[in-house]
Amino acid sequence: MIRLSRRYSFSASHRLFSNDLSEERNREIYGKCANPYGHGHNYEVEVTVAGETDPVTGRVVILSDLDTLVEQEILEPFRYKNLNQEIEAFRNAVPTTENLVFEVDRRLRQAWAQVFTPPVAVRLERVRIWETERNICEMNSELRSGV
Amino acid sequence: MIRLSRRYSFSASHRLFSNDLSEERNREIYGKCANPYGHGHNYEVEVTVAGETDPVTGRVVILSDLDTLVEQEILEPFRYKNLNQEIEAFRNAVPTTENLVFEVDRRLRQAWAQVFTPPVAVRLERVRIWETERNICEMNSELRSGV
Amino acid sequence: MIRLSRRYSFSASHRLFSNDLSEERNREIYGKCANPYGHGHNYEVEVTVAGETDPVTGRVVILSDLDTLVEQEILEPFRYKNLNQEIEAFRNAVPTTENLVFEVDRRLRQAWAQVFTPPVAVRLERVRIWETERNICEMNSELRSGV
Amino acid sequence: MIRLSRRYSFSASHRLFSNDLSEERNREIYGKCANPYGHGHNYEVEVTVAGETDPVTGRVVILSDLDTLVEQEILEPFRYKNLNQEIEAFRNAVPTTENLVFEVDRRLRQAWAQVFTPPVAVRLERVRIWETERNICEMNSELRSGV
Amino acid sequence: MIRLSRRYSFSASHRLFSNDLSEERNREIYGKCANPYGHGHNYEVEVTVAGETDPVTGRVVILSDLDTLVEQEILEPFRYKNLNQEIEAFRNAVPTTENLVFEVDRRLRQAWAQVFTPPVAVRLERVRIWETERNICEMNSELRSGV
Amino acid sequence: MIRLSRRYSFSASHRLFSNDLSEERNREIYGKCANPYGHGHNYEVEVTVAGETDPVTGRVVILSDLDTLVEQEILEPFRYKNLNQEIEAFRNAVPTTENLVFEVDRRLRQAWAQVFTPPVAVRLERVRIWETERNICEMNSELRSGV
Repeated sequence: MIRLSRRYSFSASHRLFSNDLSEERNREIYGKCANPYGHGHNYEVEVTVAGETDPVTGRVVILSDLDTLVEQEILEPFRYKNLNQEIEAFRNAVPTTENLVFEVDRRLRQAWAQVFTPPVAVRLERVRIWETERNICEMNSELRSGV
Repeated sequence: MIRLSRRYSFSASHRLFSNDLSEERNREIYGKCANPYGHGHNYEVEVTVAGETDPVTGRVVILSDLDTLVEQEILEPFRYKNLNQEIEAFRNAVPTTENLVFEVDRRLRQAWAQVFTPPVAVRLERVRIWETERNICEMNSELRSGV
Repeated sequence: MIRLSRRYSFSASHRLFSNDLSEERNREIYGKCANPYGHGHNYEVEVTVAGETDPVTGRVVILSDLDTLVEQEILEPFRYKNLNQEIEAFRNAVPTTENLVFEVDRRLRQAWAQVFTPPVAVRLERVRIWETERNICEMNSELRSGV
Repeated sequence: MIRLSRRYSFSASHRLFSNDLSEERNREIYGKCANPYGHGHNYEVEVTVAGETDPVTGRVVILSDLDTLVEQEILEPFRYKNLNQEIEAFRNAVPTTENLVFEVDRRLRQAWAQVFTPPVAVRLERVRIWETERNICEMNSELRSGV
Repeated sequence: MIRLSRRYSFSASHRLFSNDLSEERNREIYGKCANPYGHGHNYEVEVTVAGETDPVTGRVVILSDLDTLVEQEILEPFRYKNLNQEIEAFRNAVPTTENLVFEVDRRLRQAWAQVFTPPVAVRLERVRIWETERNICEMNSELRSGV
Repeated sequence: MIRLSRRYSFSASHRLFSNDLSEERNREIYGKCANPYGHGHNYEVEVTVAGETDPVTGRVVILSDLDTLVEQEILEPFRYKNLNQEIEAFRNAVPTTENLVFEVDRRLRQAWAQVFTPPVAVRLERVRIWETERNICEMNSELRSGV
């Protein structure tokens, strides 16, 4: 079994602030990331798939299929956007890197079967996001049901 | 003469849109960077100074002096901010990387003489900003008058 | 479950030399790293924690809590130090990257419960250290008892 | 248990094309990587070993032993080579990153016992290859028999 | 005056070998880069332009114009190609990084006036190419006539 | 004219402390870098040469000649060393990055003519050193006499 990872990037803005918490508590949790007008990042997204290598093609997955899926589900909707105001998932959830990883994984899993149909047996294994070079979140997709 | 460069980083958001241009022309010039809700970047700022090395200290500049100046004039005001809405200079100028380099240079030159007084003879030589790893602007501070 | 990683850096010096081995054997094992006057590195330390995302804050951990812990236990004591001479753990152990990872993990686990108290359920999962870009050590904290 | 990783690099050329597939299908799968005259990359190879730290040396493995093994088995034969034409394994397999990871792992496992003999108990755990910064393959060596 | 740089990348193969030199002299000059079957690199190309910032747009150049020019003149013709066999300029010149910089500059200058017409006054200032992270060539376009 | 740069790296230790200054003044200037037992860095050194491209070889300089010179004059003497105690130049000068650039340039210029003899006309143009990713010094070799 081989794991293949592709890295993508997009720039977006966000504000870390929860309406369910006091102004003071927001400051304690998010620091300056709670500033009212928002800020942004160059996000790096790494999508890792796992599977057997096809003996004829030598590939776990056709790269253009994976790239097209990520472009449609993640990069096109998120690129140059304000995550709080333009992404449905963040109307009721703070767009932390943790929640962003969760949302990216959810979108990829939801569209996965439209692109990767049997006999292709490639599995989404992990989503990893760099908000900056020093702040990174990841989740194993396989840990969750319904993959 | 030695050139010493220090690199700093901050995250901020902006929108590239000029009120003096039509919606269509804004799209032609700025592409998706003109999206109405803005986006953001992890900016990297490199400040280069030039001067003679002090024979006793072996330094062109005391690093903490330069760091304090950049913190006060650039990082503290720009960090986790919306450049269009929170920085005076960008009320009437589009916060492109070009204009951002210009503004960073202007702020540093304005405060320079308060920190670096004779006999310290260090000169601000260049400001360089990476908006992303693939989009970089710089200007030579010495090309302008009044340094 | 989400894994969140934070990267930190510090510069320190060390010498790889064991008093329990001959001069010749030290050279075979450590090469020039056994040079008598020591050398140093820009170390990069990645601390990975794992846990459930808090549904209100969208965070696995409050970043400033983790940063404060790492600053106090690792960065403040190690920054600009000679590991052999100034860190207790390396009086009787060679400060290889392997032993450094072990010591960083030990310090973080020892102080962990003072910072992360129930109901916070975040777990220290992994410590990874880059001695250079080409020499990296890591250990899974969970593999050891008493976490 | 500690995992130690070493990163190496080499430059080589290859062409992604299968004689078992039509010209059109080759294009669909490999895109421009199927161009007839080939192209190349700066490959990065990370070899990860796992084991107990020797209490005297503080090392999981003597680095020069690992470096010599990788130099002989991988870097010397692959450096500045055309993978399709000069590496036996790729006469009948397309030199995708997937197959390259497989071949690097095979070569290291085959020569492993010549270098790392009991009582040294270090295990080859993972091989990871960056074809570019955005295309990465890895496999866990332990997942396969005969290690 | 502002300098704006854009970085691009492409993968290609080449062989460093001169038919005007003996086999032995080729080895002395190019080492293993003279291997008969060629090898390749992930090339990084940085194109730097210089000019005044337009007061309305805040730009030295419309980025999509520059990107289109580089795509057409450099990336499209060089991507996934064998430089020796598929690029006219390297039929009679060895595709060293030096000659590659020269050819990239020549192509950009030749097409420049078709894209950047008065009153746009942006100037091609420098071309820089990374063959690897440790081998870099650049030339100042302005040092040559006919720009 | 083409500029060719090669990047090299070495690890060393140093202490920033001047015997001509008080303990307090040393702290003000060097901060924790004045700690008594020293610390260290992974230094990156970039050597830039300039010259005409030889029409036959397509090279400004034979890379192995430059590499050998830098290995002998800089890397071999500095690698895994304590700069204060083992490098003559730093017995009376503080090993700041400024002074290190000066010393590297002095060594290269002194040995230059032994390696690069007429008709080879390549010129040492610049030495640049990264002490960390965020602290960089450089000097133009041509600004000084006797090159």
